[in-house]
Amino acid sequence: MNRRITLASRPVGVPEESDFTLDEVEIPKPGPGDVHVRALYISLDPYQRGRMRNVRSYARSLELGDVITSQTLGEVVTSHDARFEPGQLVVGQLGWQEHAVARGGALRPVPPGLEPPTLALHVVGATGLTAYIGLFDIGRPQPGDTVVVSAAHGAVGQIAGQLAKLAGCRTVGIAGGAEKMRELRELYGYDVAIDYRTDDVAAALRDETVEVYFDNVGGDISNAVHRRLAIGARIVICGQVSQYNLEHPQPTFHPVLLIAFRARMEGFLVNDHAHRFADAGNRLARWIADGSIRYREDTTDGLENAPRAWLAMMRGENRGKALVKVADRL
Amino acid sequence: MNRRITLASRPVGVPEESDFTLDEVEIPKPGPGDVHVRALYISLDPYQRGRMRNVRSYARSLELGDVITSQTLGEVVTSHDARFEPGQLVVGQLGWQEHAVARGGALRPVPPGLEPPTLALHVVGATGLTAYIGLFDIGRPQPGDTVVVSAAHGAVGQIAGQLAKLAGCRTVGIAGGAEKMRELRELYGYDVAIDYRTDDVAAALRDETVEVYFDNVGGDISNAVHRRLAIGARIVICGQVSQYNLEHPQPTFHPVLLIAFRARMEGFLVNDHAHRFADAGNRLARWIADGSIRYREDTTDGLENAPRAWLAMMRGENRGKALVKVADRL
Repeated sequence: MNRRITLASRPVGVPEESDFTLDEVEIPKPGPGDVHVRALYISLDPYQRGRMRNVRSYARSLELGDVITSQTLGEVVTSHDARFEPGQLVVGQLGWQEHAVARGGALRPVPPGLEPPTLALHVVGATGLTAYIGLFDIGRPQPGDTVVVSAAHGAVGQIAGQLAKLAGCRTVGIAGGAEKMRELRELYGYDVAIDYRTDDVAAALRDETVEVYFDNVGGDISNAVHRRLAIGARIVICGQVSQYNLEHPQPTFHPVLLIAFRARMEGFLVNDHAHRFADAGNRLARWIADGSIRYREDTTDGLENAPRAWLAMMRGENRGKALVKVADRL
Repeated sequence: MNRRITLASRPVGVPEESDFTLDEVEIPKPGPGDVHVRALYISLDPYQRGRMRNVRSYARSLELGDVITSQTLGEVVTSHDARFEPGQLVVGQLGWQEHAVARGGALRPVPPGLEPPTLALHVVGATGLTAYIGLFDIGRPQPGDTVVVSAAHGAVGQIAGQLAKLAGCRTVGIAGGAEKMRELRELYGYDVAIDYRTDDVAAALRDETVEVYFDNVGGDISNAVHRRLAIGARIVICGQVSQYNLEHPQPTFHPVLLIAFRARMEGFLVNDHAHRFADAGNRLARWIADGSIRYREDTTDGLENAPRAWLAMMRGENRGKALVKVADRL
């Protein structure tokens, strides 16, 4: 049988565990060209909140009863596609469930030797590529620039700040909690760490002039950063997690700021930049291998705990990339 | 004597005529290197509202008693700079006054043969260059794009829409009033004209997909346009005139829109792009001469009427570029 986490009700405001259901269905039979994958780890991400909403956006909404969308690291059980063989590790958009049957073309093999292979779900996968494309292609930092990252200790933020450092920038990280502050400085090399829970963010930024703002959160934290923009600043809109649980989001930004600072604010979706993945992925893998990039995984055991762990991640309680371990390798 | 319009009090909210004073002072004596210029036309522009505010911005605020900042078209009376001679027409940032003494380096000669020479205050001057740089360098339209212009009948808007048409775009103009609607279509060649005073702007845009939004106004009109953005849209923040009289502007924009549409919102100041002025100015002059670009001037007689005419312009009552005629040529 296949255990799955599905959408039980559309959350209104802050989602609750009761918005999710664990059900069991038969494992589908793979047809010609299909691959049967057994999930090892599933990914928890803020974008999933958007999928639970019944609005037109860049991706299809989940219907009630649908398996929650996610990237999954799994191993091949049966393959009817010559490119894959049993036991091989793959990544695909397979959702929060123990088993999935997918077309071979929808799966990516995990590079042999990637250690741990869960890196394919973050630094050498979607979140690392998001940080890379967002920072370099959208933010375009130059050496000497000050780069501010919000949710700096999150899955994307932990990489964005280190990439900015590799590019010769001064880095300022904003996150919540004393332990995260320590790691921002000691693990990820931030020049300045600001705790939005205890510090006055605007005051802490008083002496900064911000050439690039890599924004994962929006709202009040971002408004404090916007007051310190440099002439010609670039604001990368990677996420706006402070807004995702609002049923009627209020506008948060004054476009007139962009005139005063001759600044650019730009959003992006990593999947629009697929032509960059091979090159960026190779660099990220090299920087992980040589210790230039460090990371944290925050792993919860058991598929049944995915909703609770996801809710904690949405509250910013995770440390690094939030994952759920579904099973051991066979 | 030199008659001048100065700032009598800092406007709170919507400015009134009583915020301005007409005074008379002696004409200053030009020193070595100075040029004495007699004003013929002065320019009325929304940016002047910002100068009346006591806040740090990209330009120095006016102090009480200062002459209102503006571009002026004038003729040289006396020149102690070998590059200028009496009777020559020049443009400079000389303010709302009949006489000014300026360094020669702060003046630009009006190209001989420019007819009427007031074009140096708009199409072949600051507003034309603003439209050119904003549309082409910031908005980067491609043939076939739909370009929406707000305040489409204003000094910048009237040029931006025609430049977009020259670039092979479909153009949608938003302005207020039936006569402006007619001119948007017949004089400036807009494909669609929307009257924000009588039409539901969102409904009128329902079938549009907007690649470039050239925004002069902000606020509700802009929010209606933002709902129709194309994937990869560019929002050019040229002005936000709907916000300029608010003492405590409310945020108007959701940055999360930029993710959904993978869109870019960018502000600019034309003076940052001085290296483009010669080339862009030559093209604008050529397009005026061959009839490719048409324009309207809305001229009020008499320096003493500048505050009233400026207030009307801020309410959108002008048709085309708002000027005040100060004197005839000698």
